[in-house]
Amino acid sequence: MDGALRLSEADAAFAERLAARLPAGRIGAPGAAHLEEPRGRWQGQGGVLARPVTAEEVAEIVRTCAEARVPVVPYGGGTGLVGGQIATEGPRPVILSLDRMTAIRGVDARENVLTVEAGAVLADIRAAAEGAGRLFPLSLASEGTARIGGLLATNAGGINTLRYGNARALCLGVEAVLPDGRLWHGLTRLRKDNTGYDLRDLLIGAEGTLGVITAATLALHPRPAGEGTALFAVRDPSAALDLLARARDRLGEGISAFELMHRQGMEFLAETLPETRLPWSEPPEWTVLIEVGLAAGLDPAGALEDLFAEVAEAGLAHDGLIAQSETQRAAVWAVRERIPEANRLIGAISSHDISVPLAAIPEFIARAGAALAEIGSFRVNCFGHVGDGNLHYNVFPVLGRSRADHEHQRDAIKRCVHDIVHALEGSVAAEHGVGRLKVPDLERYGDPAKLAAMRAIKAALDPAGIMNPGAVLRAP
Amino acid sequence: MDGALRLSEADAAFAERLAARLPAGRIGAPGAAHLEEPRGRWQGQGGVLARPVTAEEVAEIVRTCAEARVPVVPYGGGTGLVGGQIATEGPRPVILSLDRMTAIRGVDARENVLTVEAGAVLADIRAAAEGAGRLFPLSLASEGTARIGGLLATNAGGINTLRYGNARALCLGVEAVLPDGRLWHGLTRLRKDNTGYDLRDLLIGAEGTLGVITAATLALHPRPAGEGTALFAVRDPSAALDLLARARDRLGEGISAFELMHRQGMEFLAETLPETRLPWSEPPEWTVLIEVGLAAGLDPAGALEDLFAEVAEAGLAHDGLIAQSETQRAAVWAVRERIPEANRLIGAISSHDISVPLAAIPEFIARAGAALAEIGSFRVNCFGHVGDGNLHYNVFPVLGRSRADHEHQRDAIKRCVHDIVHALEGSVAAEHGVGRLKVPDLERYGDPAKLAAMRAIKAALDPAGIMNPGAVLRAP
Repeated sequence: MDGALRLSEADAAFAERLAARLPAGRIGAPGAAHLEEPRGRWQGQGGVLARPVTAEEVAEIVRTCAEARVPVVPYGGGTGLVGGQIATEGPRPVILSLDRMTAIRGVDARENVLTVEAGAVLADIRAAAEGAGRLFPLSLASEGTARIGGLLATNAGGINTLRYGNARALCLGVEAVLPDGRLWHGLTRLRKDNTGYDLRDLLIGAEGTLGVITAATLALHPRPAGEGTALFAVRDPSAALDLLARARDRLGEGISAFELMHRQGMEFLAETLPETRLPWSEPPEWTVLIEVGLAAGLDPAGALEDLFAEVAEAGLAHDGLIAQSETQRAAVWAVRERIPEANRLIGAISSHDISVPLAAIPEFIARAGAALAEIGSFRVNCFGHVGDGNLHYNVFPVLGRSRADHEHQRDAIKRCVHDIVHALEGSVAAEHGVGRLKVPDLERYGDPAKLAAMRAIKAALDPAGIMNPGAVLRAP
Repeated sequence: MDGALRLSEADAAFAERLAARLPAGRIGAPGAAHLEEPRGRWQGQGGVLARPVTAEEVAEIVRTCAEARVPVVPYGGGTGLVGGQIATEGPRPVILSLDRMTAIRGVDARENVLTVEAGAVLADIRAAAEGAGRLFPLSLASEGTARIGGLLATNAGGINTLRYGNARALCLGVEAVLPDGRLWHGLTRLRKDNTGYDLRDLLIGAEGTLGVITAATLALHPRPAGEGTALFAVRDPSAALDLLARARDRLGEGISAFELMHRQGMEFLAETLPETRLPWSEPPEWTVLIEVGLAAGLDPAGALEDLFAEVAEAGLAHDGLIAQSETQRAAVWAVRERIPEANRLIGAISSHDISVPLAAIPEFIARAGAALAEIGSFRVNCFGHVGDGNLHYNVFPVLGRSRADHEHQRDAIKRCVHDIVHALEGSVAAEHGVGRLKVPDLERYGDPAKLAAMRAIKAALDPAGIMNPGAVLRAP
């Protein structure tokens, strides 16, 4: 690991060297956006901004960096929430932005494959799939900004994971530049291909530490013939799980999304984004958003009505709202989708992207609430993809206090929440990744054998340690 | 790589050393089955047979082998078709059989998770899922013998990949012993977990060369409310693809299997397994088996009838048989499932487990047939999972000749078929893996950057080269 200690700065001389090996206009200076973390946690640093136009240019950049041992930080849409795209220490890196590689190279509706460059924005990919009568199911709050390369690098989740899997499950192949600058042509459209180790899935989720994804082939799905969306006011989180089980018994794999929201989220919306139309004047403590997508010949709204009748009868839900139009559907989704923005406006002391086994959800919520009460008085907004066991458990100051007042408690809060997650066999990095924020958590909670294997793989593929140093694994 | 050159034999002294570190009864001599390849291609070698009962014992065995640099060949059900479980060269290895670790530890119908030890037989796992009202979709000809550890190690495919994905897509977590003897506790039940590199998917498909899977958590699915099965006599392979597209337009993801069979397969059945009830007295040149699994409220047989009416009208299919009972369904499946056995009885000169992009299927079949005709006269049985682009393209002698007569042509036949697959951007190892059989193919057709990365990963995780040496990658 000696090599990693001798990383060099991307200084003016290096910028010149890089520029000389590329067509004109590829090298510049990082802008403010490249150095900012969306929640304002850290200030990043960067020496050079590289904006390549082809995979070969990406390879040239990485090769030049490898020769000179200059760090490379790949940069997609900049929406990551764990600091994976922000270099905070070590020599100033090359920030490698994929924002000029946005082509959607092709959509094959018959094969259900879409081929795309890494810089394409998720919303554009979804629209291209829809234009071909297909669905690309990856969907999340930042889809208007997030780029597919970053979404794959972080194995992003979102609202449709329950039915369609996370980003990894939606990717057939990748083209990528490895840390030595070699270009791997892995853009397969095959559904079955066992020619050697699964390098694709190793790069997916590696957050740019093992290479840079430059393009991908994505799996499309048929669009359900009919969709239905509803909000159910449920008794408690345990009732939400009962509701999910009953919905599955009725609708099998027709459930596309199953989201839990605590009243706190609606109160934040009322406080910060008052133009949002809330579904009820007195929000219940717990609300579930359920979306179904069914085959031709089935009636989504009717199925949701039948489901509500059953769960109301069973005492699991006491109020329900089934969208009767596209406008109502959009309004229901707007409530869920604006919660992250409301959270940002309130300002969390500590945010936790966690998952636990489904059955452990109620226990997690109860234990975390009790343990936090021992630390102090807080407002907790607990919401998220409960069908995947994935909750965003975010801790805020009470009204009248700011997060600065609680700076000294942040580590204790995080530790408290993560310890409970770990005790319940959960994950402290469910869908946002590890980035730089959760490196200490990974060291604390990670399996030692797995960590040792990860370090060995990193050293083998990136012996100089140039690729996104300090993300996922501590820089040596 | 010097270390790998100094591998030691699993001799009597080593057997004693191993036995001394384990409870009684774990160490013995390999049986004939451990040294035989199902198609009789090679004779294997083995010094010691180890039959551990716990993951800790597996770890102790691997650790002892790592210390002494003795090779380890993991052994599941012995059904692999590419020699991954048969050591053919180098010092005689420890054959590590998982056949005493067969417990199904638990089935959680609500979470759709089944936890199982690596030696459990696939049919038993499927039965356990069914007993809980769920489906474990992995299904293939050898399911009565194949063990889940081997199925994961080879990322097995089978008949339901079209709808549910291959073995990798059905696995949530693994427990595994890494090449240094460390036990990785990765038996997660989580649907979202981004805590570091995807070691699970790296072990899946690595064919025992990066460690030994000792247990797994598997993803279950709801059972479709109703199923329907049909045989359609189609005009040609291109019509089969049109049929698939129309079926998808009508039934979305309700299509569970879509298999193509050439008349040659039915003729082999008539010749070798005459008790098989064939669907037609005069088999058509091409038959498609289609299975649908639909939600409650839909009528599978009716849907298949409507589909047949449409494709018959369009000239794609000229005959059809829709199973009207469970007995008929079983009879239809028996035709498809017995073809591999009939092939074995006839004796292939060369078998090819290939995949190509869906649209390239007709071109592959046409080009391969024409190119083989240049080499000589053969019977070709082309069948398989055409919905996945995955065909088994097996080449046999004409009546009256034996495969021994064609020994000298085997390499030319294989090269001819594989060159066409490669030219069409396909895979020469679709669902059976690389094993020892296809190491030269991987070297010939594999992407150089990927191969270099694979070798670096192998050297990093298994520096002494003890894990299944010679499989997937040539032993150094």
